[in-house]
Amino acid sequence: MLLNCDLGESYGAWKMPVDSAIMALIDQANIACGFHAGDPVALKHAIALAARHRVMIGAHPSYPDLQGFGRRSMAMPHDELVACLEYQISALSGLASLYQQSLSYVKPHGALYNDMMQSENVRDAVFQAVSGIGGGTLKIMVQAHPAYQSITDHAKTYDLAVIFEAFADRHYEADGYLMSRHKAGAVLDEAGAVRQAEQIIHDSRIVACDGTVLTMPIDTLCVHGDTQGAVQMASAIRRLIDENGTQQ
Amino acid sequence: MLLNCDLGESYGAWKMPVDSAIMALIDQANIACGFHAGDPVALKHAIALAARHRVMIGAHPSYPDLQGFGRRSMAMPHDELVACLEYQISALSGLASLYQQSLSYVKPHGALYNDMMQSENVRDAVFQAVSGIGGGTLKIMVQAHPAYQSITDHAKTYDLAVIFEAFADRHYEADGYLMSRHKAGAVLDEAGAVRQAEQIIHDSRIVACDGTVLTMPIDTLCVHGDTQGAVQMASAIRRLIDENGTQQ
Amino acid sequence: MLLNCDLGESYGAWKMPVDSAIMALIDQANIACGFHAGDPVALKHAIALAARHRVMIGAHPSYPDLQGFGRRSMAMPHDELVACLEYQISALSGLASLYQQSLSYVKPHGALYNDMMQSENVRDAVFQAVSGIGGGTLKIMVQAHPAYQSITDHAKTYDLAVIFEAFADRHYEADGYLMSRHKAGAVLDEAGAVRQAEQIIHDSRIVACDGTVLTMPIDTLCVHGDTQGAVQMASAIRRLIDENGTQQ
Amino acid sequence: MLLNCDLGESYGAWKMPVDSAIMALIDQANIACGFHAGDPVALKHAIALAARHRVMIGAHPSYPDLQGFGRRSMAMPHDELVACLEYQISALSGLASLYQQSLSYVKPHGALYNDMMQSENVRDAVFQAVSGIGGGTLKIMVQAHPAYQSITDHAKTYDLAVIFEAFADRHYEADGYLMSRHKAGAVLDEAGAVRQAEQIIHDSRIVACDGTVLTMPIDTLCVHGDTQGAVQMASAIRRLIDENGTQQ
Repeated sequence: MLLNCDLGESYGAWKMPVDSAIMALIDQANIACGFHAGDPVALKHAIALAARHRVMIGAHPSYPDLQGFGRRSMAMPHDELVACLEYQISALSGLASLYQQSLSYVKPHGALYNDMMQSENVRDAVFQAVSGIGGGTLKIMVQAHPAYQSITDHAKTYDLAVIFEAFADRHYEADGYLMSRHKAGAVLDEAGAVRQAEQIIHDSRIVACDGTVLTMPIDTLCVHGDTQGAVQMASAIRRLIDENGTQQ
Repeated sequence: MLLNCDLGESYGAWKMPVDSAIMALIDQANIACGFHAGDPVALKHAIALAARHRVMIGAHPSYPDLQGFGRRSMAMPHDELVACLEYQISALSGLASLYQQSLSYVKPHGALYNDMMQSENVRDAVFQAVSGIGGGTLKIMVQAHPAYQSITDHAKTYDLAVIFEAFADRHYEADGYLMSRHKAGAVLDEAGAVRQAEQIIHDSRIVACDGTVLTMPIDTLCVHGDTQGAVQMASAIRRLIDENGTQQ
Repeated sequence: MLLNCDLGESYGAWKMPVDSAIMALIDQANIACGFHAGDPVALKHAIALAARHRVMIGAHPSYPDLQGFGRRSMAMPHDELVACLEYQISALSGLASLYQQSLSYVKPHGALYNDMMQSENVRDAVFQAVSGIGGGTLKIMVQAHPAYQSITDHAKTYDLAVIFEAFADRHYEADGYLMSRHKAGAVLDEAGAVRQAEQIIHDSRIVACDGTVLTMPIDTLCVHGDTQGAVQMASAIRRLIDENGTQQ
Repeated sequence: MLLNCDLGESYGAWKMPVDSAIMALIDQANIACGFHAGDPVALKHAIALAARHRVMIGAHPSYPDLQGFGRRSMAMPHDELVACLEYQISALSGLASLYQQSLSYVKPHGALYNDMMQSENVRDAVFQAVSGIGGGTLKIMVQAHPAYQSITDHAKTYDLAVIFEAFADRHYEADGYLMSRHKAGAVLDEAGAVRQAEQIIHDSRIVACDGTVLTMPIDTLCVHGDTQGAVQMASAIRRLIDENGTQQ
């Protein structure tokens, strides 16, 4: 089990206040690529910090929507979406090479992440872009889901390896997707998140809001860097992972 | 003597109407990188076309100014300008790899090109970016100028090879820079451009508007793709170059 | 019956090549507002031209998507969409006042226009914005449709007057919407467009591609300014309208 | 003597963390217009807050440079700059009308503010835009400066009234301009700022860093909303102003 976090999401004078202490706790840094966040200087800072902490770097590309922080679905034609992702991944990859780093994977951001999970067409564009631009070296990070087999099969057609990600601090619906942030109880408090993380780490399962037990492969846990108590929660989950590793 | 042209400068629904016949006539395609022009799909089209015609590809990065088409100088701090260029060159480089192409050189666009010629600080940021991102593989294309030695020396401190470019269809001032487009006679007609091209190709010299003879190394001639009669002018200059090559 | 056309859609160096002769033929100019097209200088030019020809001015706002020319649906939350439209309409309205002009109406652009027709939520945001910003002076232009009554009723809740628009040169589906441009025969040739315009002007009806007769109120016909033969087609339709007016 | 503050400078998910308590302390809110900051929702929030506190609203337009937060000078041709300002002021003005508010004045932002002080050409574009768009109702806020007479004279040619602004917490150079933020001591601590505010309020003078006494008309003091201790400093200066008003 690994720990990942979204980073590099400042833009010019606007700072996304991620505690840099988070970098010491995670294994994978999902770094913005400039289309929802991340001016070129911010990207370089995030890459440099990841390199210093020997954290794997993933590209975190988005729909082209700075004003909406990539949180608004956009109906992009297939060719435009593929090219838009190839462009972003290329940009980050080149910047990473300045620090002798290579990208390990791609994790789509925001609305694109959700659309990829729900729409096979969007997923197809994402898979095509990731597979094409990486020359076979990049994995794709998607949301862990009970229907993971269809995603794995789809990815195989592109020779893509999949990383499954779960969320410690978010409540799940019975259908295996996250409860909308607009619903009460969608975000777990620290105790709840640690409890959910424990189940994920030990049993690879999540109990949805109605009691349904979701079972699926999970490779990495997403922690947030910009919330109150982020570092404390990440530390607690880091400890759980490390203890579990020691026990095995 | 080579022939180069600025390409890939459409943006979404807006087309920069370059006759694709131009690609068959040139040796070097300066392809936009998205900051003054060039949406990702347009960039891929330009790269694919260059690859098909076995034309060398150069990155043509700009200040971040779509609305001004990169023609407005921007006072960017050193670090921001360096990162902004590294980002653009990286993006284009990655897209080129999709077509098994590598970038050969970088030619700054518009106001950045002019500022690079006039300001040592700007030149320093450009040279640093080109040298850093290319890992030593990229050359820098600058304007051929009687004071070329200082540019060559500056580039050497970055281990950068320089390509000197002249303009067939533009009148020069006595100081070695282009006459402003706002002045009458700044742009030569086809006969005048062919005559100037001849002098450049045979004698590596240009006669400025006041009769001053400018002598300097010139490696490549820039032709325009978006003007009336562009293809005809490029054909005429191509013929001149080819004949000259045969005679030697 | 009036004639309207989308204008002001250049952006910086990129020109949307509308023949300015079109302005002499139309009654209503739908002028872009900067979010899908139209830099401030282009907007002023379009307004000045409309003022000179005593053509009514409508705001033609869009989703914030320059790269996609407003043709890609965006899932904007209600408040963001309302504010985004209020901002654009305000900007154009202020520029119009420089030429002693006022806006008469609002016609949403591209994907927003289509979404407004299909989604009551989107329509609600559009109606709220138009009604709020105009202080009751602006009408809303929508697509003429057999189900026009529900639109009129919805608009009434905002005290908004509706202008119904039809397209002379586009084939209609039996459901009253336009045939997708991706289908063969979606765009009529000049003869077909003039024939369809005649039916609209004389009988307020359109024959859909399967023979279904669509009947509905139609106040204005949209002509295009950027296609081959645009001026000729607009002239022919102008003549039809003028002759019909004389006969009545 | 009045108190003003820059506001509305969030952008989508990025918040510029101004304490809303500042609104209760100031007389004039300089609200961003979307080109360096301020998405439409953020602008409406700022306007609504200003309306609630009966604070005068000024437009705070900028060069079109979100990534640089308007802090990078741009060499915009006269017509482009004028239109760019007219567009921004119009947008904010329309949004203000939603809250039954009118704009009182315009204060250029960032690099545009500095360029306006240093370059007569830039000032001319600003004055033209403010005078044209406001129909004579808008004042222009500029930096108070010993050479104020030339600014007043220039503004008079546009029938523009001038508001002179000084900075409580910034050290001045002997030439009447602000010491660059890059120099040590450029920003005064609270005690220093209150002392400087006192001299401005009582004696309309500022002692520059070398002891030169700068005398000039000063109408308003700028306080910052986004710095540590901003509210406390604004409160202290507010008290000074109120006490001074009472004494007179």
